[in-house]
Amino acid sequence: MAVTFTLLKECSVTGARAGILHTPHGDIPTPVFMPVGTQATVKAMSPEELKEIGAGIILSNTYHLYLRPGHELIHEAGGLHRFMNWDRAILTDSGGFQVFSLGALRKIEEKGVTFRSHLDGSEHFLSPEKAVEIQEALGSDIAMVLDECAPYPAERSYIEDSLARTTRWAERCLQAHKSSKQALFGIVQGGMYADLRKESALQLVALDFPGYGIGGLSVGEPAELMYDMLDETLPLLPTNKPRYLMGVGTADYIIESVKRGIDMFDCVLPTRIARNGTIMTRDGYLTVRNAPYARDFNPLEEGCNCYACRNYTRAYVRHLIKANEIFGLRLTTYHNLFVLVHFMARIRESILNGTFPELYEDFIARFGQQKEEK
Amino acid sequence: MAVTFTLLKECSVTGARAGILHTPHGDIPTPVFMPVGTQATVKAMSPEELKEIGAGIILSNTYHLYLRPGHELIHEAGGLHRFMNWDRAILTDSGGFQVFSLGALRKIEEKGVTFRSHLDGSEHFLSPEKAVEIQEALGSDIAMVLDECAPYPAERSYIEDSLARTTRWAERCLQAHKSSKQALFGIVQGGMYADLRKESALQLVALDFPGYGIGGLSVGEPAELMYDMLDETLPLLPTNKPRYLMGVGTADYIIESVKRGIDMFDCVLPTRIARNGTIMTRDGYLTVRNAPYARDFNPLEEGCNCYACRNYTRAYVRHLIKANEIFGLRLTTYHNLFVLVHFMARIRESILNGTFPELYEDFIARFGQQKEEK
Repeated sequence: MAVTFTLLKECSVTGARAGILHTPHGDIPTPVFMPVGTQATVKAMSPEELKEIGAGIILSNTYHLYLRPGHELIHEAGGLHRFMNWDRAILTDSGGFQVFSLGALRKIEEKGVTFRSHLDGSEHFLSPEKAVEIQEALGSDIAMVLDECAPYPAERSYIEDSLARTTRWAERCLQAHKSSKQALFGIVQGGMYADLRKESALQLVALDFPGYGIGGLSVGEPAELMYDMLDETLPLLPTNKPRYLMGVGTADYIIESVKRGIDMFDCVLPTRIARNGTIMTRDGYLTVRNAPYARDFNPLEEGCNCYACRNYTRAYVRHLIKANEIFGLRLTTYHNLFVLVHFMARIRESILNGTFPELYEDFIARFGQQKEEK
Repeated sequence: MAVTFTLLKECSVTGARAGILHTPHGDIPTPVFMPVGTQATVKAMSPEELKEIGAGIILSNTYHLYLRPGHELIHEAGGLHRFMNWDRAILTDSGGFQVFSLGALRKIEEKGVTFRSHLDGSEHFLSPEKAVEIQEALGSDIAMVLDECAPYPAERSYIEDSLARTTRWAERCLQAHKSSKQALFGIVQGGMYADLRKESALQLVALDFPGYGIGGLSVGEPAELMYDMLDETLPLLPTNKPRYLMGVGTADYIIESVKRGIDMFDCVLPTRIARNGTIMTRDGYLTVRNAPYARDFNPLEEGCNCYACRNYTRAYVRHLIKANEIFGLRLTTYHNLFVLVHFMARIRESILNGTFPELYEDFIARFGQQKEEK
């Protein structure tokens, strides 16, 4: 099989797991955070920098690449890895999330979704088969089934219909999927209804995917509700398959989800807030573009060993960001990805050596305190 | 002295010279192109990338840094080198060029120039003494006197007055300059009037600067007129001092000016056109963002050994630039600076081994031909 998972250790107190995701482009220690490279590039970063940071797998977007430059062009270029000069692993989403986000610009039917491009308004059609075809052309290591990421809040009847269709689409994706080098993951949906989440999980497990995404969470619901949904769903998934919580990437959500048994994460937030001048620290967030940092000649984060922190001050980074200089975004992006990737490494280490519960307690006591500091 | 110049070789046929500029932050082989780091960063680049490209000296802007983040702040940070993490040489301009470019927003008097900030409209005053003070606070290796870069075309009477004031300002800068670690260069002006250019050169030489800028050229005049002005001026400057043609940085202007005896160049063009998706090649220019390159899987420039050309295709770079991705600008900027820095190295090599005239002839026959190719 193209992608397999080795479960190395389970926490004896919580649901946390440490493992290895084996892909055609390398083994990835889990739990893992995947930086997002929407348009065949992780914004502001080079592949060499991503490697230096320690990223082993990135996510790229079917919807964006299909529209521009087009999946055929990328296929012609030798596939996405070669096109973007990234020889480690790539997971592609199905495009479903972006298409459903288009709101009035898309129409859902059983056969698929008709939508208009956000770039030029041109009309397109995305079906489960097409989503698979595009991802096979891109040549990612892990592809995702086409699903509907339902809005929150949503009526039970809406979620019931959506979920049933999502399962039928998952079957069609599985049918259409031909590549032996690429793994196709299913996606658990079900809105905020515990019984529907369970139903979705059981239906997908019956289809025997090599891995499972959990979609439709962190869409505006209270954090506790998201954790409840994970608590209901994860015990139903096979322990020997990786579980990927889609679109989640803040430290607090990550540690709570790892605790419940999630292995993989992705999120645009770390790179997006970086470009707005906000950095992530072990303890929270710090908006370095704010005035108090104008004459602050300390590194972005005291004690951080990343390239940005070893060489530059908050004052310099703030200056660059105020002056709209690209290098400022490079430094904040580098730092934020470094912080998250190393956070995952510390979490993994603690699971392996049996101290995850202590790391978790320490995190909960610390995180968010820094906000009040300045 | 802080900055000295060793003349290694003069071309036996043309005026071309090869030398070494000795600075407190390293020896710089000349002729040299200085990438422009307007706001304490060469746009899109890291210091490590600039070193990898082979840049030994960069230029930064007094006007911009004075307004934001302020020269006192940079001084507090330990000076410009430390602030921006650049341990090689820096030349700062005097701010004169930017201030005079403000047009209606500035007023020239004998004591100095009153101007309004392009950022917030606030009023400021720049005098020869202030320009020196700012540059000393920044701690650049080479500072420039405050001069007036006169417009083109301009009446003779205007240039006469402007030139006389520029010489008086040069004397005041020299009086005000205290730093022993920093060299202060004079600037030859005189518009497009050969006798005024000569007068300016002689007046400045009498003041015995450690180096001479040639200002007020490449401001819209025909290229031949610029070359005439160089032909009139350069023989009057001492051969043992470096000559810096300000604001010039296209390959054709560079080689024509080297031929006449120029040692130093700077220009925003290579980095600016890079951000618009145009690359420089040995033979001219190529706008990689144009449609014909959409499926072109060749490197930016065939035979180029730079990071961008070794790892990426025109198709990928075009995609990034069309999609407004920062990494695209990083790649085109890297390539353009690499091309210019290596062009200077080839020119220097040819001067040293006595083949500059052949290199010049070859360049003239080739350059600009590529434009017709696509």
